[in-house]
Amino acid sequence: MVTSTSVTDIAKNARRAANALARVSEDRKNRALREMAEELVKQKGFITAENGKDLDNARKSGLARAMIDRLTLTENAIDAIARGLAEVAALPDPIGTVTSMWRRPNGLLVGRMRIPLGVVGIIYESRPNVTVDAASLCLKSGNAVILRGGSEAIRSNIALGQILSGVLRNAAIPEEAIQVIPTTDRSAVHEMLQLDEYIDVIIPRGGEELIRAVVEESKIPVIKHYKGVCHIFVDASADIAMAEKICLNAKIQRPGVCNAMETLLVHRDIADRLLPGLGGKFQDAGVSLRGCTLAKNILPDIEEATEEDWYREYLDLILSVKIVGSLDEAIAHIEKYGSLHTESIITSDYANSQRFLNEVNSSTVLVNASTRFSDGFELGLGAEIGISTTKLHAFGPMGLEELTTTKFIIYGNGQVRT
Amino acid sequence: MVTSTSVTDIAKNARRAANALARVSEDRKNRALREMAEELVKQKGFITAENGKDLDNARKSGLARAMIDRLTLTENAIDAIARGLAEVAALPDPIGTVTSMWRRPNGLLVGRMRIPLGVVGIIYESRPNVTVDAASLCLKSGNAVILRGGSEAIRSNIALGQILSGVLRNAAIPEEAIQVIPTTDRSAVHEMLQLDEYIDVIIPRGGEELIRAVVEESKIPVIKHYKGVCHIFVDASADIAMAEKICLNAKIQRPGVCNAMETLLVHRDIADRLLPGLGGKFQDAGVSLRGCTLAKNILPDIEEATEEDWYREYLDLILSVKIVGSLDEAIAHIEKYGSLHTESIITSDYANSQRFLNEVNSSTVLVNASTRFSDGFELGLGAEIGISTTKLHAFGPMGLEELTTTKFIIYGNGQVRT
Repeated sequence: MVTSTSVTDIAKNARRAANALARVSEDRKNRALREMAEELVKQKGFITAENGKDLDNARKSGLARAMIDRLTLTENAIDAIARGLAEVAALPDPIGTVTSMWRRPNGLLVGRMRIPLGVVGIIYESRPNVTVDAASLCLKSGNAVILRGGSEAIRSNIALGQILSGVLRNAAIPEEAIQVIPTTDRSAVHEMLQLDEYIDVIIPRGGEELIRAVVEESKIPVIKHYKGVCHIFVDASADIAMAEKICLNAKIQRPGVCNAMETLLVHRDIADRLLPGLGGKFQDAGVSLRGCTLAKNILPDIEEATEEDWYREYLDLILSVKIVGSLDEAIAHIEKYGSLHTESIITSDYANSQRFLNEVNSSTVLVNASTRFSDGFELGLGAEIGISTTKLHAFGPMGLEELTTTKFIIYGNGQVRT
Repeated sequence: MVTSTSVTDIAKNARRAANALARVSEDRKNRALREMAEELVKQKGFITAENGKDLDNARKSGLARAMIDRLTLTENAIDAIARGLAEVAALPDPIGTVTSMWRRPNGLLVGRMRIPLGVVGIIYESRPNVTVDAASLCLKSGNAVILRGGSEAIRSNIALGQILSGVLRNAAIPEEAIQVIPTTDRSAVHEMLQLDEYIDVIIPRGGEELIRAVVEESKIPVIKHYKGVCHIFVDASADIAMAEKICLNAKIQRPGVCNAMETLLVHRDIADRLLPGLGGKFQDAGVSLRGCTLAKNILPDIEEATEEDWYREYLDLILSVKIVGSLDEAIAHIEKYGSLHTESIITSDYANSQRFLNEVNSSTVLVNASTRFSDGFELGLGAEIGISTTKLHAFGPMGLEELTTTKFIIYGNGQVRT
């Protein structure tokens, strides 16, 4: 347990480390990341021993099986974490990139250069791999990071943090660039969220309840998404086979994640051809359907959807199905019930594809592809630190660039303002 | 006076208008902006009459002369506001621009398209021209705006707002895209700042006190800067004539603005050659200097600077002067006392120019040019809605692009995730 003072000290040290880290070259950061990968593998014994203590406590306190699985660091899991570090080392470093540059009439050459945000606070739940994952992305993008994981993973997180900051120390990079808050005390989070002088952004990763609690308390800007109520709209002109394949993938491939489909909207002119077959396949895959009155006319066995259902993120093998009369009705439904996360249209109509892409202002909008592609790796960002459904700073999956901002750099030769 | 409920209604209506406005074409927005310009000129009589009522009240309540000047809408001032509207109409519309696009190995074509933030809240002090200025930039960038001006300008602001939304109504654009809060009641601001469900961002424009009060109360992200403690560092290798010209411009040309120089840092190897001449010119221009001990050795008549002075934004003909031993000491001073606003180095040394540009992470960093160029118009953004010294979303002068975010748009042909 640390005292209340020391969370502030952690943040002050992070700010100081961030100022120094902003000037560390790409080569040195990459070398440190690769050394971290080696060190994690070397210290597997220590990590699994510390993780074992967390697991013992978890079993004693009767943590659910699924939670214990997420908490467990096997030797294979540690190898995978180390590979992740090497992959981050191989990504391009955004810092120092000049994203654009232009000449003013008075001769000034004006550019925008990427710089780190500064200090990033990550608040997350059980999985200890997030500790290394988030730390590596912050280091690569020149940000100091303060990590606050779940209490059930405290010993694992402290062990991982020690290894990472040990590597920084050996590399003559300020070790406070990566700090794990070494306490499970709830008041530490509260204190952390007041430190807007030292921490630039908070990224909470976890369930909606955790995120709402963070937003409620924080004086620091929070980049977040509460939930993903993702829609697929099957337009009248859709290719039936493609629609079936995409809808099944979006619901079933991994139902517990935020980019899985939660509501299927079907144009009434294709419903009779699509729903009997697709409904059967969903039921074969164990998906419970909840439909509007029109959908129940076609699939009489399914439950009736309530008004509540259209807002729900099931994160489970449950799907709401609604028949709509037009693209406009589909867009209006998404606008009313959606969460600004991810929406897809299945269509062979050019005009409708363009209208959907232009008019739906969710963070990711797709044509003829599964909502499951709304992911930093899948979109080619190379990494993912989180997904934002608020529009300030970042909207959608966030990679390394979203951990930066830009400053204006200006080359003059004596210009003054008149 | 409106009741508390109606501020929430204003915000709900703004959200609805924003959804519609996001789909209005550039042509229609530009036509509306040009019609607003014409309408303001046509309705000069009405505007000056309403402004006259504000001026009467201001005089009765003994408002300071400078404030009354800022409040006054002459016929010429209205012409200038109308010209500003025409200029905004002529700017490129950022909405719908695809800023980048790339192909994934599975064939997905992924792009980022600019979309409006949604609903922008502007909280500002006396000058009623801000009402039109901010409304026009928000309209151009597809954002609905809620305007809360100073109580002393309430009738002027309501009059201007009526004219602007009248034009929207005639153009079949939802008139709630531009709304002036029609009350001077302080509780209306408090209520507005809680409405994070309907308002996406708050931009306060005014003194530090106003901005701190907004930040303290707001549940909505605030884009802001508190103050500009801007530095110029005259390096040992600087051209003396250029250094003099730039320093005088940065301090004197308009001392009351946030990008004026407040602290001059001088390398000790050039101090003896620079300060006697420059000090005399500053004194001739009525600038009071406050120096460190070393500066006082060269300019014995000047006041001694206190520790407090290095943090101060004078906004006046006062300047702190410090002699430093190296570029590192200059950068360390800026890091400790600066406000992340704007800093300039005057140098003829290549390596030092690069180090200053790379290592100083203020929002605008210049070489051999006046700090006064830190301004949306001067940097070529075409417009300025504000300046941010916090790093999230925008950093530095903000133009139309900073009133947008990007969504991911994805063109597929049946891709599913495996």
